[in-house]
Amino acid sequence: MEPKPASLTRWIDEYHNGVRYGLEGKVLFNEKSCFQQITFIESKRYGTALLLDGCWMTAELQEKSYHECLVQPALCSAKNINNVLIIGGGDGGTARECLRHAEVKRLDLVEIDRRVVELSQKYLPTLGGNAWTDPRLHININDGVEWVKNKKGASYDVIIIDSSDPQGPAKGLFNKLFFENCKRILRSGGVFATQSESPEAFRKIHIETIKTIREVFDFADPLYGSVPLYPSGWWSWTFAAMGKQFYKEPIQQRAQTIASQCDIWSIEWQTGAFKSMPASIHRELSQ
Amino acid sequence: MEPKPASLTRWIDEYHNGVRYGLEGKVLFNEKSCFQQITFIESKRYGTALLLDGCWMTAELQEKSYHECLVQPALCSAKNINNVLIIGGGDGGTARECLRHAEVKRLDLVEIDRRVVELSQKYLPTLGGNAWTDPRLHININDGVEWVKNKKGASYDVIIIDSSDPQGPAKGLFNKLFFENCKRILRSGGVFATQSESPEAFRKIHIETIKTIREVFDFADPLYGSVPLYPSGWWSWTFAAMGKQFYKEPIQQRAQTIASQCDIWSIEWQTGAFKSMPASIHRELSQ
Repeated sequence: MEPKPASLTRWIDEYHNGVRYGLEGKVLFNEKSCFQQITFIESKRYGTALLLDGCWMTAELQEKSYHECLVQPALCSAKNINNVLIIGGGDGGTARECLRHAEVKRLDLVEIDRRVVELSQKYLPTLGGNAWTDPRLHININDGVEWVKNKKGASYDVIIIDSSDPQGPAKGLFNKLFFENCKRILRSGGVFATQSESPEAFRKIHIETIKTIREVFDFADPLYGSVPLYPSGWWSWTFAAMGKQFYKEPIQQRAQTIASQCDIWSIEWQTGAFKSMPASIHRELSQ
Repeated sequence: MEPKPASLTRWIDEYHNGVRYGLEGKVLFNEKSCFQQITFIESKRYGTALLLDGCWMTAELQEKSYHECLVQPALCSAKNINNVLIIGGGDGGTARECLRHAEVKRLDLVEIDRRVVELSQKYLPTLGGNAWTDPRLHININDGVEWVKNKKGASYDVIIIDSSDPQGPAKGLFNKLFFENCKRILRSGGVFATQSESPEAFRKIHIETIKTIREVFDFADPLYGSVPLYPSGWWSWTFAAMGKQFYKEPIQQRAQTIASQCDIWSIEWQTGAFKSMPASIHRELSQ
């Protein structure tokens, strides 16, 4: 039997292929930007949460299980981390995780939708936290596809793709040409990172994404974790590099400076998460 | 906007602490047994699914991500697997996974609720599959707590607790006295296995369960995986043994006989899943 929500709250759901995942809460703000429907809700369970086009993106009290897993395997293992690029990530969580590293000198955040940045700063200020006022952060309201196309070679030590699903504004962030430009602008010893969807709810896209990245980079491997807000809760992030699997060898000293503040990520967790590929995905990737 | 369900279907949800997870489908059968509300639905996404007291238990097309992870780390690594005990598991999925091993000579399935067995055989026949007619399977409609109390020492090579959450009929399967009896009836070189809840949705129970099992057995370690049907989708299973961590050393030959039919489990996956402990859980268990 459905529990009666507290007064003024209701259920707000994401629908995906015969499954729905809902949070009890109330809508704080709703706007159709030039790119997408942007909704902020106040949820009973996870604090303020953001939906884009009706899909859960992040929530105050459940964002670390996504942002740490996307950022720290790359930031803790690239040879240098002076210059970092984030495509997407307008909520600020990925930028905050990057800027925890004092070694980062410049961070370019390229977000296509200005309103996601402005509204996240207003409704989800803890996600970006100090990043929003950090002089190392440079916000560029721009198309990530164009940005990587126009940037000169070897510009970044780390490139992080923090996108929504490959439909709507994020569509161009999942194809070979885009990955080739990322490789071109990545420095030697650098690490490329992208969210790579659910091995369960988006199995086909997940597999295709890994295969495509493997065609472009010398090495690419997914790691697996959990983001309860996302379809199936089962999520993946894929890391790529040239020459060797830098992303599998975190630098102890760098890791130690951030580990005690991590909820999910640790060197041990990461080592396990890279091995946790479901057997049937492994078979399909080996074909 | 809520998609209009196909005619005759509706949304059937589990509610948990401000979150709901629903499948589109229709109710096939609903009965209040002596122990719990038993509901079978036909879902659009995952085939026939079972709820007990309104909580998702299993579904035809999404049961391997639970059953393989509970069973194979134990069955592939115990010194011998002649005699196996399952407490709970009335849907038959755990029994089927065990009986894939030809080495198993006798399997005692102790389920408290006769109706779960009878109705699963009718509505979810593929879960148990050939197990239901396998002469090695002995079904005992009985209280698991009493069963382990009355059994003589060193009766089983593997003991598997396949329970629902620690409320209602499964309450007695999460306390120290129960675990002590399990240890007593486990043979040398044996492995104990239990589902140990979500590190996210049931964080406190998860941690307490591991700590309690560690007080009883020489070694106990959780592994982490994903069961999209369950609260948060992030799940754990805990394995325990005396003398050494048998459960961390799968026997290659035994694993090879079942690996090609597994969707999730592999030796590599298992190695990773044991390491994938979230950093904050690790800190809490180390206190």
